[in-house]
Amino acid sequence: MYEDAVELAKRRGFFWPSFSIYGGFAGFYDYGPLGVLLKDNIVKIWKEEYLDDGAIFLDSPNVTPEPVFQASGHIARFSDLASECDQCKNKFKLETVLGFNKISSIPKSLKDAEELVEKYNLKCPVCGSVIKKVYDFNLMYRVSGDYYLRPETAQGIFVNFRLLNNYNRGKIPMVVGQQGKGFRNEISPRQSLIRLREFNQCEVEVFLDPENLKFAELYDYKKIKIRPNTGEDLYISVKEAYGKKIISNQAFAYFVLKTQVILEKIGISNDKLRFRQHEPDERAHYAADSWDAEGLIDDEWFEIVGIANRTDFDLRNHENSSGNQMRIKINEKDVIPYVIEPSYGIDRILLTLISQSMEKKDGKNLLRLPYYMAPYHIAVFPLMKKDNLKEKAEELYSKLKKVDSYILYDETGTIGKRYARQDEVGTPFCITIDYQTLEDNTVTLRNRDTAEQERIKIKDVLDSNFIKNLIENKSKL
Amino acid sequence: MYEDAVELAKRRGFFWPSFSIYGGFAGFYDYGPLGVLLKDNIVKIWKEEYLDDGAIFLDSPNVTPEPVFQASGHIARFSDLASECDQCKNKFKLETVLGFNKISSIPKSLKDAEELVEKYNLKCPVCGSVIKKVYDFNLMYRVSGDYYLRPETAQGIFVNFRLLNNYNRGKIPMVVGQQGKGFRNEISPRQSLIRLREFNQCEVEVFLDPENLKFAELYDYKKIKIRPNTGEDLYISVKEAYGKKIISNQAFAYFVLKTQVILEKIGISNDKLRFRQHEPDERAHYAADSWDAEGLIDDEWFEIVGIANRTDFDLRNHENSSGNQMRIKINEKDVIPYVIEPSYGIDRILLTLISQSMEKKDGKNLLRLPYYMAPYHIAVFPLMKKDNLKEKAEELYSKLKKVDSYILYDETGTIGKRYARQDEVGTPFCITIDYQTLEDNTVTLRNRDTAEQERIKIKDVLDSNFIKNLIENKSKL
Repeated sequence: MYEDAVELAKRRGFFWPSFSIYGGFAGFYDYGPLGVLLKDNIVKIWKEEYLDDGAIFLDSPNVTPEPVFQASGHIARFSDLASECDQCKNKFKLETVLGFNKISSIPKSLKDAEELVEKYNLKCPVCGSVIKKVYDFNLMYRVSGDYYLRPETAQGIFVNFRLLNNYNRGKIPMVVGQQGKGFRNEISPRQSLIRLREFNQCEVEVFLDPENLKFAELYDYKKIKIRPNTGEDLYISVKEAYGKKIISNQAFAYFVLKTQVILEKIGISNDKLRFRQHEPDERAHYAADSWDAEGLIDDEWFEIVGIANRTDFDLRNHENSSGNQMRIKINEKDVIPYVIEPSYGIDRILLTLISQSMEKKDGKNLLRLPYYMAPYHIAVFPLMKKDNLKEKAEELYSKLKKVDSYILYDETGTIGKRYARQDEVGTPFCITIDYQTLEDNTVTLRNRDTAEQERIKIKDVLDSNFIKNLIENKSKL
Repeated sequence: MYEDAVELAKRRGFFWPSFSIYGGFAGFYDYGPLGVLLKDNIVKIWKEEYLDDGAIFLDSPNVTPEPVFQASGHIARFSDLASECDQCKNKFKLETVLGFNKISSIPKSLKDAEELVEKYNLKCPVCGSVIKKVYDFNLMYRVSGDYYLRPETAQGIFVNFRLLNNYNRGKIPMVVGQQGKGFRNEISPRQSLIRLREFNQCEVEVFLDPENLKFAELYDYKKIKIRPNTGEDLYISVKEAYGKKIISNQAFAYFVLKTQVILEKIGISNDKLRFRQHEPDERAHYAADSWDAEGLIDDEWFEIVGIANRTDFDLRNHENSSGNQMRIKINEKDVIPYVIEPSYGIDRILLTLISQSMEKKDGKNLLRLPYYMAPYHIAVFPLMKKDNLKEKAEELYSKLKKVDSYILYDETGTIGKRYARQDEVGTPFCITIDYQTLEDNTVTLRNRDTAEQERIKIKDVLDSNFIKNLIENKSKL
């Protein structure tokens, strides 16, 4: 449903390419009115779920001075191998050129890449000329002055480790979350929200005693697809995977499980979700172990959350570069904590959620989001604009907005079309004011998934818990 | 209380200077754990208040291609007059140099400035040498490629006007909000959150029929300090100010009133808030009329919200530059809408809120935030760590977190110190588990502002509406 999701997103206002009146700029997308609300709901689930684990939060700048990325290794190593055609001047990721030329070996360094280019006559995928130029392309955006746009929110947390740990009164485990933008000057952005140059992250850094990589209780939960880098596909629970030492430490396993719970709560289907361990040569420069939560769209798996064991790599580098201690006292020793990082790609989660939630029903679109995730909870309609129905509907709309902010009003088109419009964007309930309303102050309440309606008193609709119970699925309808 | 507020903010984790381990970089601040939660609450009030007016929202990129700012006039005109000392190489805003040299005339153009520099022997405020160099300094950050970091979120809305208006089915008035970062390469950042290089904005663009600048109903509300640019200080309601034509159109007056309501709801004191009209030469290049909502900190007024009549300036420029029509049909004519823009400076609002909310009581700090604005709603304490009190407190903490995410647990130090710590950061209620709890399952509930306690059943505390009613001030305590 990827194509349908992108079409729906643009037509109905979830997301669309940015700056289209100036021709569009690859890798940049806007969230429109429905997308902003849906994205906010995803972030809210993330935030509340981590608050439940005692997380604290940080908001550090996007614009970041050079020394931070000197220390973190991003200036030296956060790059893609790239190539440029001398003839047509197009730039490519080297792997794109290799793929086009049907060469399966993947160079691990610039030197390897140069040897490959020597050995084969690589053809330009655009003009067919022989490609000779290959280079390391750093993915960070430079900003005037000696600044960069951060390629991940994580470094803001690392450079603040001491201040955050003071706030936390010296205790670890300490869980720190940051929601914000990341920026990568991708050589080839692709597929709408899949690879953006500016993207939304919710990152969590969990600081742990290196000698005791444990966090909370690892409880029994649903089975899931698990693919360790030994190659087999397993269908087991996270707890089992840890028990069998497929996941290397308890804290890592806990945050795999946490991620599963969060993604399911957001609305990602458990049967279209898997955890895949990185190959050793696939990991980022800072990671000793990495697992991706991947979501299925059509028949392709996409990384939506990356969980990495960053060890003490970042804190140690910042200690060395800044001269400031990044140690805390554990059992009377000064220790640099280890970090486990679950990093959520909010754009990809949102795209996956829309793609997986789309259904066709009688030739119409139905977006089966969890009720509490929907951009709007309730739409209010007058059956017709005449005979005081409109006034009655507007009155109910005004009153409902005092109870819940996510209420729509619509009076345009036939009632059938209005229901279809709301079904398509996932609004779980529609309330219609009709002629009977004028007689007995009841309205119809229609459910998105069943299309069934029941009559209900306006008085009951306005009860302060009515909408809350509806969207949390505590009412019967 | 500015100094106290900044000290509290740093010590307790509301905000602090960024990148301090690398020596600090002027104009950049982090929000710490309490600051993130407080900032989120400010944004939530803004969002819900505008949803109530039917607002839709957008989230567009920070990284913005050059043509957008060519069209908007920011490349040509978004600059400060600056000067540089040839001797010590320090850079200043020209007004700083003029102030230091006790020269009161303010140049309006680079040419004026050059004449001033010719005429006077301006001394460098740092080394005392004569300053000769004066120039226009553009405040936008350049990004590699032909990009800039947006200096305001507004342009993202303007370039999307057609898509947004299609979403809105062609209707105006249309209210579009955007929450996000803005970036200005300030020559001299100052006073913590007052002038940042990266800052948090909540902007609203209201698109209106130029022949009918009206929006909703302008209702009677409290009097406020109003200072039009004719110079007098008035103490009247917004409705009166509009009636007396002090505010030029009804829609503008409506959003002044809206801003007053939002700021009060956030917790800004009505008696430390005023609306001041800009002098004609003080306005931004796009504005035909501007009023600032100003908050009082100690004895200085700071702009916290700017409300501007941007007319059709931006849409017309984007129409001309892009060749894409920015018109809609009104009364069978193709019309470019007018825009009224209330733009909220979230950092300054937060700083003002903390400064105005701080009180000293018996030598201790008390942060008298509205209950619903506090970073945490309730703190749970065991009286002592022994005799099963700790376990009982942890159990209540776990259960409360299922009802509300903003709950703290603290067992460190005397109970008096723990109350004082929560008073200082504005936590409205503390629950203590004591020996009587073990006998009858009651706890003490203590109010921040009165320091009074009452005994209450655990069963009642866990009722799903208990905390909600407490923080919305619907319960008696």
